[in-house]
Amino acid sequence: MSASVGSVRVAMLGCGTVGSEVARTLLDPTCADALRDAVGAPLELVGIAVARSGVPREGIGGGLLTTDATSLVRDGGADVVVELVGNLPGVDALLRLAFDAGASVVTANKSLLSAHLRELSLAASAKGVDMLYEAAVCGAIPIVRVLRTSLAGQRLQRMLGIVNGTTNFLLTTMSRDGRSYEDVLAEATALGYAERDPTADVEGHDAAQKAAILASLAFGAEVSEADVPREGISRLTATDLEAAARMGYVVRLLAVAERVGADGVTVRVHPTMLPKAHPLAAVEGAANAVFIEGDALGPLMLQGRGAGGAPTSTAVLGDLVAAARNRLAHTTEVAPTFASNVHLLAPGDVRSAFYLAIEVADRPGVLAAVARVFGGHGVSIRSMEQVGLGDDARLVFLTHRAATSDMAATVEELDSLDAVTAVGALLHVVEESDT
Amino acid sequence: MSASVGSVRVAMLGCGTVGSEVARTLLDPTCADALRDAVGAPLELVGIAVARSGVPREGIGGGLLTTDATSLVRDGGADVVVELVGNLPGVDALLRLAFDAGASVVTANKSLLSAHLRELSLAASAKGVDMLYEAAVCGAIPIVRVLRTSLAGQRLQRMLGIVNGTTNFLLTTMSRDGRSYEDVLAEATALGYAERDPTADVEGHDAAQKAAILASLAFGAEVSEADVPREGISRLTATDLEAAARMGYVVRLLAVAERVGADGVTVRVHPTMLPKAHPLAAVEGAANAVFIEGDALGPLMLQGRGAGGAPTSTAVLGDLVAAARNRLAHTTEVAPTFASNVHLLAPGDVRSAFYLAIEVADRPGVLAAVARVFGGHGVSIRSMEQVGLGDDARLVFLTHRAATSDMAATVEELDSLDAVTAVGALLHVVEESDT
Repeated sequence: MSASVGSVRVAMLGCGTVGSEVARTLLDPTCADALRDAVGAPLELVGIAVARSGVPREGIGGGLLTTDATSLVRDGGADVVVELVGNLPGVDALLRLAFDAGASVVTANKSLLSAHLRELSLAASAKGVDMLYEAAVCGAIPIVRVLRTSLAGQRLQRMLGIVNGTTNFLLTTMSRDGRSYEDVLAEATALGYAERDPTADVEGHDAAQKAAILASLAFGAEVSEADVPREGISRLTATDLEAAARMGYVVRLLAVAERVGADGVTVRVHPTMLPKAHPLAAVEGAANAVFIEGDALGPLMLQGRGAGGAPTSTAVLGDLVAAARNRLAHTTEVAPTFASNVHLLAPGDVRSAFYLAIEVADRPGVLAAVARVFGGHGVSIRSMEQVGLGDDARLVFLTHRAATSDMAATVEELDSLDAVTAVGALLHVVEESDT
Repeated sequence: MSASVGSVRVAMLGCGTVGSEVARTLLDPTCADALRDAVGAPLELVGIAVARSGVPREGIGGGLLTTDATSLVRDGGADVVVELVGNLPGVDALLRLAFDAGASVVTANKSLLSAHLRELSLAASAKGVDMLYEAAVCGAIPIVRVLRTSLAGQRLQRMLGIVNGTTNFLLTTMSRDGRSYEDVLAEATALGYAERDPTADVEGHDAAQKAAILASLAFGAEVSEADVPREGISRLTATDLEAAARMGYVVRLLAVAERVGADGVTVRVHPTMLPKAHPLAAVEGAANAVFIEGDALGPLMLQGRGAGGAPTSTAVLGDLVAAARNRLAHTTEVAPTFASNVHLLAPGDVRSAFYLAIEVADRPGVLAAVARVFGGHGVSIRSMEQVGLGDDARLVFLTHRAATSDMAATVEELDSLDAVTAVGALLHVVEESDT
């Protein structure tokens, strides 16, 4: 269905926090004028599919609401379908239905895209419509378009992203105030900065979804969330952050995607020690940032607001303007390309330098035993620091680059030693020479 | 002329540093394969217009070279014309000839665009072809596309840019090492970081051209270089930078574009004091960065490599890939829109806080006389610091926000006072509350 002469027809799926903000923007006369100027034609909101239509929604006329999403998408004559339903079963089918009806789609659904980016991209291309999803990753930062278009011809080497604002807020607050993880999380939850169930953020699930999408775009690899090994921040202590600071590093939860060799790619999420001079080390609080390195590009960093209603609805509206302008111009954005010759490395094969802190009984011979474990797995120690803790001692190790599998085996064996009373968080280390 | 089935035909104008790098990339078999994958069809270099064809160019066959740019553009059957000639008379006409011949244009010509962006944009749109110019501003940072597309629907409030790498290198080196402007400039020239004639960089001409282009895109205003009041860094001293640091600021040469009131816009280039916590304060050396604030967007910063052969040719190749893909898909990028209801403020009406250092005879009554001058022009002093200098004293002032014309009149009157022995650089100050 092509745009009617007078307006671009918009159907919405979902009317939660972001959805109602987008809907109110479309309905507000001043905002509607600004959008009309940006698009070159008015946007006409033709309907909003919701789970329960009886609930009154401020500023949104009840006549726009329907519980029949399928009919709205199939028969509503929409030029653009804006999907803000979130992770519900059947959303996938609704998007395909929209493509079949000739509508472009704007979606913020990172969960869906981290599982089905390639198939959905191909389905949109096959129908000659757009699928735009800037809002799915890093809120107001236009990283999706930069990767899809500006950097499309580039051979990228590495991407390091602070893609979860909640964990960055927790880590930078712990570090600044020397407070414990539990303490800062409790405060963040009370203030509404963290969800009541923070698992998706603090255990890295949210970051892994975004990592999958970004890596797919950056390397043309087919990466889904299930392919992304993930470690969260809940095991980090104030002591770890202090030790890192003493050694000249800050700690950030990073989504990492990098090329290895000619056709290998690794994608993962883990707490990472970054040199203080690294541009990402200056990214504080709930901000998001993505740092990209390419052969000819050099280092490029984009930094801005991540999650939240305003950045997300901003990104949705930006995509809606682009999709609507494309409709009027009978064009689409160039679809992302997926390379066939890129393969994901087995997680254990990924090589990295590591930080590990363990607590041991402070008695002769323990350090030698511990060192033997590292050596037995081929992990070379770059530096070791011993801090007395009464009867116990705390040993802080930095290693040279080692295979993740060898480091994991080292940790496992250390944990089994009688003299080792506790094994702390394992951090990946980005070295000065890497930056 | 539409793309032939098999390949996208590329004609080049100019074969200097960037041009020869782009040409060699197109001709290198490995690079050509990567470009073909990115585009979806091979790029075929059909000719390169040069001033003198007899000069051998490494890796570029003499048969490709011609001194007849007009024929190459008019009759060469190019799908995309890549213009890397620089600021020569007649380039404008060559681009229009390319549009008339149905070719898209990729250009890095900031000088041309800062004078004729609107007319050339309209000319390209009228012929249904692309004009892409990512390389004209901030090298490898995709700021042009982000403004043209991702932020097209946004109401932006302000843009602060470090858009000239040479001056940022000079300022950050002066500041780090406590060295004089002349000393650091001499070293930078010897190392090739600064041009033998550094005027275009250090007096802000280069930054003013980029400011004009960025402001045009950000606000839909028609701004040319001549509209941009400009002050360079050559009057800054190590003492100014020390004073700024003591007060919690860093000094950067900024391109500033901001909205004032409902339909006013101001665009200017000047040395600026930024609070140390501002994201731009962390941008060191020859890097470029653009910091953008919008109503819903919040703060967004893009940082990367600015000038130089590699970042520039990277941006040119990125645009070439985009233009070629658009040709194959029979589409174009959405053209920038120019608003009719935006007007440029008279430079004197722009309000800012200021830093001014003057040297005065150290005798009674001088401070009162100086203060009277500020007051007489309605400029309110926020803080004053007096530093003894033998018989003389150095007075450092920070003002509250004042009209630029009032501050200029203050400086002029101070300069005429007998007791004032020297008037130093005038810096604009971005206040904490502005960020």
